[in-house]
Amino acid sequence: MEPPGTSRLEAFSDGVFAIAATLLVLEFTVNTNDSAPALGHQLLHLWPAYLAYVTSFLTIGIIWINHHSVMETIARADRTFMFINTLLLLVVSFIPFPTRLVAEYLEKKSGEGAAVYAYDATLLLMALAFNALWTYARNNRRLIGENVPERTLKAITWAFRPGVPLYLLVLVLAIWSPLSSVVVTLVLAAFYLPSAALFDRET
Amino acid sequence: MEPPGTSRLEAFSDGVFAIAATLLVLEFTVNTNDSAPALGHQLLHLWPAYLAYVTSFLTIGIIWINHHSVMETIARADRTFMFINTLLLLVVSFIPFPTRLVAEYLEKKSGEGAAVYAYDATLLLMALAFNALWTYARNNRRLIGENVPERTLKAITWAFRPGVPLYLLVLVLAIWSPLSSVVVTLVLAAFYLPSAALFDRET
Amino acid sequence: MEPPGTSRLEAFSDGVFAIAATLLVLEFTVNTNDSAPALGHQLLHLWPAYLAYVTSFLTIGIIWINHHSVMETIARADRTFMFINTLLLLVVSFIPFPTRLVAEYLEKKSGEGAAVYAYDATLLLMALAFNALWTYARNNRRLIGENVPERTLKAITWAFRPGVPLYLLVLVLAIWSPLSSVVVTLVLAAFYLPSAALFDRET
Amino acid sequence: MEPPGTSRLEAFSDGVFAIAATLLVLEFTVNTNDSAPALGHQLLHLWPAYLAYVTSFLTIGIIWINHHSVMETIARADRTFMFINTLLLLVVSFIPFPTRLVAEYLEKKSGEGAAVYAYDATLLLMALAFNALWTYARNNRRLIGENVPERTLKAITWAFRPGVPLYLLVLVLAIWSPLSSVVVTLVLAAFYLPSAALFDRET
Repeated sequence: MEPPGTSRLEAFSDGVFAIAATLLVLEFTVNTNDSAPALGHQLLHLWPAYLAYVTSFLTIGIIWINHHSVMETIARADRTFMFINTLLLLVVSFIPFPTRLVAEYLEKKSGEGAAVYAYDATLLLMALAFNALWTYARNNRRLIGENVPERTLKAITWAFRPGVPLYLLVLVLAIWSPLSSVVVTLVLAAFYLPSAALFDRET
Repeated sequence: MEPPGTSRLEAFSDGVFAIAATLLVLEFTVNTNDSAPALGHQLLHLWPAYLAYVTSFLTIGIIWINHHSVMETIARADRTFMFINTLLLLVVSFIPFPTRLVAEYLEKKSGEGAAVYAYDATLLLMALAFNALWTYARNNRRLIGENVPERTLKAITWAFRPGVPLYLLVLVLAIWSPLSSVVVTLVLAAFYLPSAALFDRET
Repeated sequence: MEPPGTSRLEAFSDGVFAIAATLLVLEFTVNTNDSAPALGHQLLHLWPAYLAYVTSFLTIGIIWINHHSVMETIARADRTFMFINTLLLLVVSFIPFPTRLVAEYLEKKSGEGAAVYAYDATLLLMALAFNALWTYARNNRRLIGENVPERTLKAITWAFRPGVPLYLLVLVLAIWSPLSSVVVTLVLAAFYLPSAALFDRET
Repeated sequence: MEPPGTSRLEAFSDGVFAIAATLLVLEFTVNTNDSAPALGHQLLHLWPAYLAYVTSFLTIGIIWINHHSVMETIARADRTFMFINTLLLLVVSFIPFPTRLVAEYLEKKSGEGAAVYAYDATLLLMALAFNALWTYARNNRRLIGENVPERTLKAITWAFRPGVPLYLLVLVLAIWSPLSSVVVTLVLAAFYLPSAALFDRET
């Protein structure tokens, strides 16, 4: 039996990324009781839910793009790689839950901190799993295709390096200001793209 | 590292389109209390939910077909394209929420306007994101394959042009009649297909 | 622009079939109040939910297998075909809702008939959409690949023919006995497979 | 009509595996009433939900990897194979429900046993369906590709053999200790991987 190729691994991973991103919409709820505030009023006050939705969606989008970049350098996947990938997907699949917590508790007197800690800790775990995946594949070029130049591997390693410390900083920031912590996470996701695009041009 | 191909981008996008369309069914609920009206009665009175479901499903179906047409002209995707695509998917994934609002509030005394504004605004954002995607790819043939004739690009641009003004009109129409606004959205989706089929024959 | 190929159409359709089937599990609920009956007792009394789940899952599985058979004979898809396919998927995506109704109302005094009528009517619509899809593709071999022998087309037409009348019969049967109607639907799904496998060997 | 290839079967199966795994996150709920315990406290007391989530996710991940191994030896799929595969997917899709039961009832005075029996019985059914799938494909090399050596088939059979007895043992263990039963299921999933990786190197 040959080592498994990567096409079904990509299909499975793409499925999980796409579903986790799309399930985020289930966090949105309104109170339909007759005694509830007017719907327009409720929709405007859902802004923490919109913020959490956009932040999580873009973050999943970026991790998907990065996963894409990694898979392009991989010639084959062994079962250890598949196991680490499963752990990464386990964390990504979990994102809708802390996202719902942020949507529900942001700017509430009680529970705001716990919600944002849970959110930031989940993203930190995601970054750690992603680094483990890349480190395992990249070490001694264990799973790297022959045609991939060392320069590309260095560029990818360089691009992924800030993930863990940044999400750690964001977690610490939540101690002072949970709201700022979520906003910074959104800004990180939104700003990562132009530099990532730059990175495409250079290599 | 080569610019990423488009196959995984299509797989991820197809996943999001398919899931967003399928999650629409979760909007349907009935009251199972013993004191609730008879089920048959309830099912007949769910017509706003059926209307919203069919409208959103066909609209997602059409945007998927259009996405398909765009991807066929694209030779490669850069990360900016992937970012705009992520924004488009973010809006498409959101559709089940305003669809649920329309299903819940249409023909209700309070909240009907807000629900339909939210719905129409979401579709307008979708059309804007779609236009941004095409404009970015098409300008100076930035990402267009060499074999794609200029005539085809013009035909696609022509076909997509009415989207934004039409959804803007539909949004304005909702001020007078929320119900008409949803019905017109459905009619637009249903009528777009024959002309689109015509467009296939011409090119 | 060439007529679109069928690979993304299959990917999108497979996504919808898979998601609709998997969303069926959301119908299962138990009462977690302290005053609720013991969980073991509740799980045994969920049998209408198990029956509905298995029936809908196998039915979606079979329609997926049949869709597969159709797509194998198709050389290309035009936008009318894509539109009919979208209508078929719209009905398939809807299946989790009447399935939940059957799970909830079967063997209840009130609502049982309405729930099963809704269920059977949905499956009838599905059979009608499926026939429309095949008839459109097959007429004058509109979309059929050159290498596909007429004999195969006849065999497929023959295999699909019983669908609409059978689901109509099942709907009529529900007037007398909603439970029998669901059981017959399950039996039809389970028995269709051996004959379908036979059909594979013959052609 | 040729016997259907396996690519769409894999796409459909991957879809179901990915969705079932991702739907697991919907089991997580917190009480948002003002009188509820603090969110931080609630999140710590959700540990049965985390345990159930990780156990089910890894188990689905492993069954997906095993499915992958089987499909690599298969040259073609007949409709009986597709039927058994549909039964396997039916069981896998069901997993989120007993997972939610375990998350809800573990360490509760009442219902704990029933929840874990339901969970273990589902995994046992999954193992049985998986064995049926492999036995059908493998017997007389019915669906096996010509290039696959007998040695590989023996190794796969050997690797899959412990599944059914182990899940049976885990079910019996639940009579004494439901919690241990879930923990052992997790350990089995986590430990299966290194030996599976070993198996890759040998063949």
